[in-house]
Amino acid sequence: MNPNELWQRYQRLLCHVPGLGIKIDASRMAFDDGELGAMREPMDHAFDAMDKLEQGAMANPDEQRMVGHYWLRDATLAPNDELRHAITSTLSQIDAFAAEVHAGKIKPLEGKRFTDLLVVGIGGSALGPQLVADALSNVARRDRMRVHFLDNTDPDGFTRFASSIGARLKSTLVVVISKSGSTPETRNGMLAIEQLYRTKGLDFRGHAVAVTGEGSKLDDHARKQGWLARFPMWDWVGGRTSVMSAVGLLPMALQGLDIEAFLDGAAKMDACTRSRETMKNPAALLAMMWHFAGKGRGLKDMVVLPYKDRLLLFSRYLQQLVMESLGKELDLDGQSVHQGIAVYGNKGSTDQHAYVQQLRDGLDNFFATFIVVLRDAVGKSVEQVEVEHGAGGLPGVTPGDYLNGFWQGTRQALYEKGRGSITIMADKLDARTLGALIALYERAVGFYATLVNINAYHQPGVEAGKKAAATVLDLRSRLLAYLSRQNEAKTVDEIASGLGEPDRAETVHHLLEHLAANLKQVKRKGNRFGWKP
Amino acid sequence: MNPNELWQRYQRLLCHVPGLGIKIDASRMAFDDGELGAMREPMDHAFDAMDKLEQGAMANPDEQRMVGHYWLRDATLAPNDELRHAITSTLSQIDAFAAEVHAGKIKPLEGKRFTDLLVVGIGGSALGPQLVADALSNVARRDRMRVHFLDNTDPDGFTRFASSIGARLKSTLVVVISKSGSTPETRNGMLAIEQLYRTKGLDFRGHAVAVTGEGSKLDDHARKQGWLARFPMWDWVGGRTSVMSAVGLLPMALQGLDIEAFLDGAAKMDACTRSRETMKNPAALLAMMWHFAGKGRGLKDMVVLPYKDRLLLFSRYLQQLVMESLGKELDLDGQSVHQGIAVYGNKGSTDQHAYVQQLRDGLDNFFATFIVVLRDAVGKSVEQVEVEHGAGGLPGVTPGDYLNGFWQGTRQALYEKGRGSITIMADKLDARTLGALIALYERAVGFYATLVNINAYHQPGVEAGKKAAATVLDLRSRLLAYLSRQNEAKTVDEIASGLGEPDRAETVHHLLEHLAANLKQVKRKGNRFGWKP
Repeated sequence: MNPNELWQRYQRLLCHVPGLGIKIDASRMAFDDGELGAMREPMDHAFDAMDKLEQGAMANPDEQRMVGHYWLRDATLAPNDELRHAITSTLSQIDAFAAEVHAGKIKPLEGKRFTDLLVVGIGGSALGPQLVADALSNVARRDRMRVHFLDNTDPDGFTRFASSIGARLKSTLVVVISKSGSTPETRNGMLAIEQLYRTKGLDFRGHAVAVTGEGSKLDDHARKQGWLARFPMWDWVGGRTSVMSAVGLLPMALQGLDIEAFLDGAAKMDACTRSRETMKNPAALLAMMWHFAGKGRGLKDMVVLPYKDRLLLFSRYLQQLVMESLGKELDLDGQSVHQGIAVYGNKGSTDQHAYVQQLRDGLDNFFATFIVVLRDAVGKSVEQVEVEHGAGGLPGVTPGDYLNGFWQGTRQALYEKGRGSITIMADKLDARTLGALIALYERAVGFYATLVNINAYHQPGVEAGKKAAATVLDLRSRLLAYLSRQNEAKTVDEIASGLGEPDRAETVHHLLEHLAANLKQVKRKGNRFGWKP
Repeated sequence: MNPNELWQRYQRLLCHVPGLGIKIDASRMAFDDGELGAMREPMDHAFDAMDKLEQGAMANPDEQRMVGHYWLRDATLAPNDELRHAITSTLSQIDAFAAEVHAGKIKPLEGKRFTDLLVVGIGGSALGPQLVADALSNVARRDRMRVHFLDNTDPDGFTRFASSIGARLKSTLVVVISKSGSTPETRNGMLAIEQLYRTKGLDFRGHAVAVTGEGSKLDDHARKQGWLARFPMWDWVGGRTSVMSAVGLLPMALQGLDIEAFLDGAAKMDACTRSRETMKNPAALLAMMWHFAGKGRGLKDMVVLPYKDRLLLFSRYLQQLVMESLGKELDLDGQSVHQGIAVYGNKGSTDQHAYVQQLRDGLDNFFATFIVVLRDAVGKSVEQVEVEHGAGGLPGVTPGDYLNGFWQGTRQALYEKGRGSITIMADKLDARTLGALIALYERAVGFYATLVNINAYHQPGVEAGKKAAATVLDLRSRLLAYLSRQNEAKTVDEIASGLGEPDRAETVHHLLEHLAANLKQVKRKGNRFGWKP
């Protein structure tokens, strides 16, 4: 298309979100009116399915669960009073708790005020809080607490936190988040931190808060130990869409971020994305573009490039939301379909210097999503240095002009090579905008799932790895017990046979490699392993 | 394959790197002896090409440049005395400078010692230093300086740095890195920081160091202003392979990391990867596996999952190294091939909770690369809490056992579904290992490039976006001049025509949107834009 045709197409297709200052531009994606027409019926079906889901249908049939993340930002939509009350009373509880912490009414035994917040969680219990904390830090007002995360079971990661927090541990509030209450990485993190408090002679219970399902292992633990507070998670909120439950809102409130605006942005985006006109419904538009791009089979990766440092983690957040929701083996009819869309990206213009070379010249296996924020200043003041002075007293060129120019240049350079892109434009980046962006993608994922006939709300594929890991850990205990009884070093095959597990020699090998590297009792001699009490 | 066959295959294929404690396991990739045989001749060709490159051939023919990153860790290999001297004297200069900074001989005018280091750079001038700083922070000995980065032209990013560094600005050393010396993002970052120093009444010149090509714009600027020091970059080192030049080594040395071990690890890996036996050469083995996985056309994404928090940035580093090197339109014969391999990933086991669902059940469009570190303790001491106590006084289960178990579980779960994986196992994570891993991938990329007949050392595709951005910024200036002369608000089309650029109305539109959001002089009235002096 020539520039004028492109400009007309841009204006014709531009999708505005009223009241949020957000626009979606799909003009640089390749599709024509015929393709649009063919999508009318499938999109109607997607709208129907979403209506039912919002009304409380068992939208997650395998797990016999409702899917209620949309109710979190508008409790009036929840299907019954009990759920409405759960949502609103938790919100009040969060507000009240954060206010008391900020006022120093809830305070550490060893000081006047909590200064730091450590969130222990993983996956759905970390990515949302991490995104929000980084994107909104010191926006609108100064943060009330410094936020840290432990999102893995890497012992060295625990040590790094311990050494970086130093003496501030005694004024650190620890929020442990696990929906099931038994996620091993989170439990390990909690135990490591408990031990750290113990080592320092501090009482962990006076620093600890739980966010978990009622009656879970973590809930029981927190109740019995007498932690500061417990906040609920519900089975009708999936981990990857839990950022607007206590999972995301409690850390936000403690950091001093505007949770009301965050929820309002999401509610407004929800309202707008209930439209049944695809071209005026930004979530439907996104879902349809993904469908066009990958021919409904995920043939193109989704490269997400926000031109804003604060949105660096947005693509990682979307990686989970999109890939865990859409990456499914079976469709709703039980047919093997192996669906999904791969998502990656960091930020522009930084990534231009990393891999735009491949995006423009190399494999044609992706479509780009640019996120552009028009207002350069996010916090209170920005030193917008003039990097080139303007002629005749006119305003000079700023770094923000460059950032915007690089987005335009890259979009154009990709278009010239037939690489499609979507651009999401936001007037500014604040809690409202971020809530809206998250809601936008949540619903786009829901629509797309219906288009390709899959359940977006379960994750049957994650169990296998967990189970396999559990059997490895079980074998580890038996292996240690066996090894400690041997008088001489043995080969891996001998040990596996001795354990009655000749078929698991490779697992025994990997366990021995790890044990020999970390336990002084396990000794390697050549290709033999032995025990030294 | 049954477990026993897999174990035999594992042992048969395992590739050891002598002296580095690194092993490569390709047993879970699908290939057979016939395929291996067919690769013999292409691999021989790749070995020949690499030999020539190392001997100083014009391995980057388009740009008429030698490719010398291998010489950086073994200057004796450089093709002439001048280059050898350049390498060794720069190393001495780095050591001496860092020692003087640490000793307080080179110190800020306003204090006793530099406490913080700010690196301003982007792409090849940021990713390496970022990876190294994060991976090796407080390993072996405590960091001598805290390291910060500015890697974009986001004004809000500059403000965030300014607010986080606070009063420590006066004891911050700023290293500005740009090979060409005219990278706009880096220049803008430098100017913003210069202004920040000015605002605080500090003399930037006494805090500034340049790493850049001799005679570049940045070099001239630093020389004229009288910066503390200037370090060279050379045209025979590409940005994405520059971490072992002053680009990476100067920040490392200032942070107090072991640059000698880092270079030694790379040199040892280089020595090992010069073997002409593919199955005993870990870089050749990787390249061949990539070729098998993607049928030499990049049909599978490379998902990189280090089971180690400190290696979080490794996949981002590889994104650049692999995608910018291999993502090429034309092959060496000028044929259009659109090569490349898409790379993404963060870390395990964290990512298991984000998208292993899709990896196991969804699209079969990737192969995984796991990186496993056997020794859990990286720093001086690790509190390896027992999360489950052992029976009969035996050592209990640690978080590190879980981390290792999750890798094994995921590898197995993927294998069961026919998803291939490579595992790189390292005894421990330190400067030597990291140098070796980087060298491993540098050479793997080089081999793969020969296998698919492309130039891995240029990046012709990045210019188009930069040029397009430059024309946008040029139009911005003319647009402002034009708008300031108008007495009434006009539509985008009117303004574009008035500028004599009716075909660039969309660019005018995006510029006006950005200007109206940031400049008080540019006012929007409905769909019209005007000027208010």
